[in-house]
Amino acid sequence: MRVALLGGGTVGAEVARILLANSADLAARVGEPLELAGVAVRDRKRDRPGIPADLITDDPEALVNRPDSDVVVELIGGIEPARSLILSAMSHGSSIVTANKALLASHGAELNEAADRARVDLFYEASVAGGVPLLLPLRQSLGGDRIRRVLGIVNGTTNYILTKMGEEGMGYEEALSRAQALGFAEADPTADVEGFDAAAKAAIIATLAFHTRVTIDDVHREGITGITAADMSAARRMGFVVKLLAVAELTDDEAGLVVRVHPAMVPHSHPLASVRDAFNAVFIEAEAAGEVMFYGAGAGGQPTASAVLGDIVSAARNRTTGSRPGWTRPYAGLEIRPISMVRTRYTLILDVLDRPGVLASVAGSFATHDVSIQTVRQDQRDGGAVLVIRTHLARESDLAATVENLRELDCVEQVVGVMRVEGEEGS
Amino acid sequence: MRVALLGGGTVGAEVARILLANSADLAARVGEPLELAGVAVRDRKRDRPGIPADLITDDPEALVNRPDSDVVVELIGGIEPARSLILSAMSHGSSIVTANKALLASHGAELNEAADRARVDLFYEASVAGGVPLLLPLRQSLGGDRIRRVLGIVNGTTNYILTKMGEEGMGYEEALSRAQALGFAEADPTADVEGFDAAAKAAIIATLAFHTRVTIDDVHREGITGITAADMSAARRMGFVVKLLAVAELTDDEAGLVVRVHPAMVPHSHPLASVRDAFNAVFIEAEAAGEVMFYGAGAGGQPTASAVLGDIVSAARNRTTGSRPGWTRPYAGLEIRPISMVRTRYTLILDVLDRPGVLASVAGSFATHDVSIQTVRQDQRDGGAVLVIRTHLARESDLAATVENLRELDCVEQVVGVMRVEGEEGS
Repeated sequence: MRVALLGGGTVGAEVARILLANSADLAARVGEPLELAGVAVRDRKRDRPGIPADLITDDPEALVNRPDSDVVVELIGGIEPARSLILSAMSHGSSIVTANKALLASHGAELNEAADRARVDLFYEASVAGGVPLLLPLRQSLGGDRIRRVLGIVNGTTNYILTKMGEEGMGYEEALSRAQALGFAEADPTADVEGFDAAAKAAIIATLAFHTRVTIDDVHREGITGITAADMSAARRMGFVVKLLAVAELTDDEAGLVVRVHPAMVPHSHPLASVRDAFNAVFIEAEAAGEVMFYGAGAGGQPTASAVLGDIVSAARNRTTGSRPGWTRPYAGLEIRPISMVRTRYTLILDVLDRPGVLASVAGSFATHDVSIQTVRQDQRDGGAVLVIRTHLARESDLAATVENLRELDCVEQVVGVMRVEGEEGS
Repeated sequence: MRVALLGGGTVGAEVARILLANSADLAARVGEPLELAGVAVRDRKRDRPGIPADLITDDPEALVNRPDSDVVVELIGGIEPARSLILSAMSHGSSIVTANKALLASHGAELNEAADRARVDLFYEASVAGGVPLLLPLRQSLGGDRIRRVLGIVNGTTNYILTKMGEEGMGYEEALSRAQALGFAEADPTADVEGFDAAAKAAIIATLAFHTRVTIDDVHREGITGITAADMSAARRMGFVVKLLAVAELTDDEAGLVVRVHPAMVPHSHPLASVRDAFNAVFIEAEAAGEVMFYGAGAGGQPTASAVLGDIVSAARNRTTGSRPGWTRPYAGLEIRPISMVRTRYTLILDVLDRPGVLASVAGSFATHDVSIQTVRQDQRDGGAVLVIRTHLARESDLAATVENLRELDCVEQVVGVMRVEGEEGS
């Protein structure tokens, strides 16, 4: 079984190292030895300890076009040339393992159909939640169940930042700097902090969980840059933590699907609340299985390499046994609905005037828009009061209309924060 | 695709219900309709709502011997006749799905070899941790990694009892009665509280995680009936919870394996500590993936049915595509070592005389046997003192010798508790 690697970065180097170091184990599991056929890198001159020099090439096309690669592992990232290289490898009969979330979230349908036509495997466990086994259990172990909702912490960078803000009282900028210093965040953190990375993963998860084609363009996306100290302290006082969640769920009529990424308050008692620092976890609500959670390291060279190697072993074993478990087709074709259709709970923080009748006006605005209030907490502040209001389940569009209306009330000086609440009983 | 069910109890009825209710979904996932071919039950007279009467039979042999069953689902439990029925079904070319942990933990090798010879699938996800996807991710997703240790809470009954004892200060008997009243524990709770159930699951997990044949007879087993209020309050004061753990780990030389089930103290900061009530979770330490945890409902008709259905869909899909992912052979053949070889940490609770020199005598006993003390806490009690001693990593046999010696010291009135500590940093 010959394995060709495209990409010699952190993950690629770790995959090559383990392929060579654990070759006896891997051969026993596959049923045949796994041979590293070549590693395509950008810079051939760089020192790559442990990888024999004659395996290094800077010509990925030539590596992919060799007809003797059983499994091609794409770790280049981005759309092109990754997409073309994968399609080309498939056309030569190679099975594909990739960690490329951006590509899967935008061109997943094209790649899956090409794999189906070429009768090769396309595995991408490493594209979501790094070393946490998620996509295979979602496709197979839960393959006889009906999933109703998925709540995921799938971006380690933002979870680290939010953990530091919540537990140590850091501001956003300070927590981001700390994450950058530790290598958890990139110099340009946009993809993480604006939720693009989580949105790509949400699309991949939703496609498999709901048997429906979902791309990153279908995902409502809000990042964490607007989260304030007021949001954090309100959450803490109520017994909640703030997480950037990827949520995919059936609408009430079960004919539609909403997929969204945004910060949310999660109660301390929820299993996701204890997922700290750069860890990832995905919490699934299924009709028969009930509540299931997968937890682990969401990024890093070694955990990601573990997921890639699991896929390599599966793909290689399928070739030795002549098996192919088959693509999970998006047969359900649920309609992607806008976020305005979502029903969830909300927490609002309002700076208001400190005078009689304010609460009545504010409560009236909620009632007018059909949003039912669960709790109100009023605190003094210099020159006024702060209201922290939690709602019952309400429709996103009704809540948006309420906020619009609150902004126009004379007694409301400022809408300081509006955050969704997820993971409460009965939501 | 014809599915024959052996067993019409809680899980069987739920599997039948979902097969019939979700048939369109399941057909789309398998690629062909799944047809319920028959349900073998003990009592044909009992009312079974939702299952057509003409599918009910009390002759499981006849159902198994029909040559047209694609998948036979064994939910009878116990060794016989389940074993013979499964072997017979395999000989007729049917793939097997079972939830039978006792059978797998005692006759797993025989069944796997028979499945291999018959070229059929043998899936048993539901045998461990109910609705929590565990065995498939262990076999496949982590199939390119090296697992070093598995720590599992795999018995919901004992976890419920220990949660009530720890959080509400109930005694063992009271918590057991509560569990029985709620249906979490059986009238004869032996299999759960003495650790037999967890030991069977530990054998199944260890076989897959370490590619080594492990049976229930290889598992060191201690139950929870000896746990006292003193153990619980000592744990609480130190920031620990008490859990019944199934532990499977490589020995330091990496050539051996110890598999054990016993109560252990787990620090609050460990992900397993927050697994409460009847929930299950399995925590895996792997070389590349790092720490991974699977969490969910470990028992109950619906969650178990979810796991069974996932296996049915996989087995049926493999038949429609002509695939067979292949048995994971126990190629590693690690030596099963006795628990005396284990190195872990311990907490001891001693009733001692309240006089000078006692601590020196006690500490001397630890030093003589090469067990290093991490912390000592001394509290007053009527007519004496209580010592709570935590050790560093020590060998089980050295700790046993220390306890033997402590019992002979004049100043030690009683060894009130000895409990292992798992899940601490660096252990």
